[in-house]
Amino acid sequence: MELFGTTNLPYGVYSVDGGAPRCATRLGDQVVDLADLLGDDVFALPTLDAFLAQGRGRWDEVRAGLRARLADGVPAGTTAHPVDAVRMHLPFTVADYVDFYASEHHASNLGRLFRPDNPNPLLPNWKHLPVSYTGRAGSVVVSGTDVVRPSGQRAPATTDGSAPVPTFGPSTRLDIEAELGFVVGVGNPMGTPIEAADAEEHLFGVVLFNDWSARDIQAWEYVPLGPHLGKSFASTISPWVVPLAALDAARVDTPVQDPAVLPYLSLGTDRAPWGLDIDLEVELNGEVVSRPPYASMYWSPAQMLAHLTVNGAPTRTGDLFASGTISGPGKDQVGSLIERGEGFLEDGDEVVLRAAAPGPDGTRIGFGECRGRIVTSRQLDNRKAQQ
Amino acid sequence: MELFGTTNLPYGVYSVDGGAPRCATRLGDQVVDLADLLGDDVFALPTLDAFLAQGRGRWDEVRAGLRARLADGVPAGTTAHPVDAVRMHLPFTVADYVDFYASEHHASNLGRLFRPDNPNPLLPNWKHLPVSYTGRAGSVVVSGTDVVRPSGQRAPATTDGSAPVPTFGPSTRLDIEAELGFVVGVGNPMGTPIEAADAEEHLFGVVLFNDWSARDIQAWEYVPLGPHLGKSFASTISPWVVPLAALDAARVDTPVQDPAVLPYLSLGTDRAPWGLDIDLEVELNGEVVSRPPYASMYWSPAQMLAHLTVNGAPTRTGDLFASGTISGPGKDQVGSLIERGEGFLEDGDEVVLRAAAPGPDGTRIGFGECRGRIVTSRQLDNRKAQQ
Repeated sequence: MELFGTTNLPYGVYSVDGGAPRCATRLGDQVVDLADLLGDDVFALPTLDAFLAQGRGRWDEVRAGLRARLADGVPAGTTAHPVDAVRMHLPFTVADYVDFYASEHHASNLGRLFRPDNPNPLLPNWKHLPVSYTGRAGSVVVSGTDVVRPSGQRAPATTDGSAPVPTFGPSTRLDIEAELGFVVGVGNPMGTPIEAADAEEHLFGVVLFNDWSARDIQAWEYVPLGPHLGKSFASTISPWVVPLAALDAARVDTPVQDPAVLPYLSLGTDRAPWGLDIDLEVELNGEVVSRPPYASMYWSPAQMLAHLTVNGAPTRTGDLFASGTISGPGKDQVGSLIERGEGFLEDGDEVVLRAAAPGPDGTRIGFGECRGRIVTSRQLDNRKAQQ
Repeated sequence: MELFGTTNLPYGVYSVDGGAPRCATRLGDQVVDLADLLGDDVFALPTLDAFLAQGRGRWDEVRAGLRARLADGVPAGTTAHPVDAVRMHLPFTVADYVDFYASEHHASNLGRLFRPDNPNPLLPNWKHLPVSYTGRAGSVVVSGTDVVRPSGQRAPATTDGSAPVPTFGPSTRLDIEAELGFVVGVGNPMGTPIEAADAEEHLFGVVLFNDWSARDIQAWEYVPLGPHLGKSFASTISPWVVPLAALDAARVDTPVQDPAVLPYLSLGTDRAPWGLDIDLEVELNGEVVSRPPYASMYWSPAQMLAHLTVNGAPTRTGDLFASGTISGPGKDQVGSLIERGEGFLEDGDEVVLRAAAPGPDGTRIGFGECRGRIVTSRQLDNRKAQQ
């Protein structure tokens, strides 16, 4: 019960025995069928999309209803299954996916790696806007999905001034990026930006996010239009969307921003702070190798949402934006293997992200795990041949 | 009839008098209701999605049926409307959208503008892979939709070595990019790339594409993760999807690629060439200002599709990838205003892209027009206030 008590109540989509997927919440180790519990057919659907689109007022009502109905445990006669007995699905249809780069420690670590001669590891724009790019929505998969090692072009840098010549093959520098993903419930129409102070009306909840990254493919392709094939093969999310409402007690100040940001990135002073005191854990083959602290992030999700719509870009139900790699100041707090400096992923390696945050009254709010195992292309070819 | 005869027969989605959108083809100046003409309910839907997903065999059958049924004009009693009497809609649900950078002339022109001191205007990766980035699918709109001038951060470069300081406001360097967009009918599962030689089984058709670009916003934001807000406010497509099958007579050799490309980007020698002899026309406020020739493109759509899936990334029905700005060698053949060098878009400016290609037996294949007018944020606010 510890991480999934009545102060959490995340949303997901499950199925049993190959049946139709339906919406659920989680109480302790029980997956509770929401349509059965609440008598609301919006939860008999195979995604949370329709519920997400209903907006903050309805989200609050449903949460209040859930807390009341589940206060004494799962009511007798309500459909529920042990977490180990269900299959979890992608909880919502990913509309557009954007990835930010919001950790100063991570951006500085990569700046030192990639531009060792530059005394300032951050580029000139970094403290003025939350740098970001659009990623592939169709590659977002749910925890537990195997990740096929991507092949692609790599070209080692030359030292004699000659032109690099690329070769093709499986990535040899396959990495993770431990992030949070933010799920848009209600979007904005084209031409009408979302103000930072209104982010709460639009953001439904939070998932764990692993932005698998092939560093060798990325290094060769990314000039001048940014990363593409080095990222687009797969991104994994946790199956449970933790509602923002469950994270009230985790709201903390973000680090002081200096220089001051432009007004559209400012929250005003009468709003709850938008930092989130969420502690992540990166497990590699059963061993915890890092503990990235989300509270250290320079840019907040409210600022990210205000930025990505300030040009009039619309967002939609199911839009997902991720924070970028979460790295704290310590070597044991980095969110990627390249920063850790002890090698990249081997075939068969399994990575699990976990996280928890403070809830009300001394409770803890857990996130579902975000798990993925690396398989070779050959393993996949074999499976194909056997079909 | 000239551009929309029975050798063309593009697909679109229309409505009349606020009724439900339905699928149509175009014969001359008539919009012909497909569900009524063919008695197939897949065309009574508000998008082409379900038809696109049926695959090459069905696409060919339907096209043969259409040509037979329309050989002598629209049969009496079939629902049809003059093109001026209908409203056209986005013809399919855009899944993921990727933009390439496939014109050597365009990439060289921009290289000379942005890196004047470098003797080679192309970056080292450009001739080895079709450089590309993922764009915002939710911002793709149909021809005729007004485009709100985006606001954002701009920071003029400093000459004294001091740090640039951004200001916020409407873009003052708003540009177009004249492109073709390629529509995926049948995608590939994650982990299973599409071979260049198989592109024909996956690609359904072609639209005109205007990738509106705010050069000032883009210049400040794009390092190191590529363009985002400078592009994500809007992209416009033509309402008619011209099926690949209508472009057989337009297939021409692509320019010789030197150095030789890696095997996954090679078509083999037994396949029809993948260049497309499509002539575009850029009209600005009623005057044709440029005629970009698609046949000059260095990378072919088959290579683009092979590249974007070679890492195992899945594609889906409705995936859209665009060619990047089409620029020929001549000053009057460039696909963007920055290359033309005579200023950027003012409020009220209207841009129309048109195109035509050779069809069989001396016919011509037309594309629907791709039209957009720039409006200020203030104009939009007024309209909002009046509602």
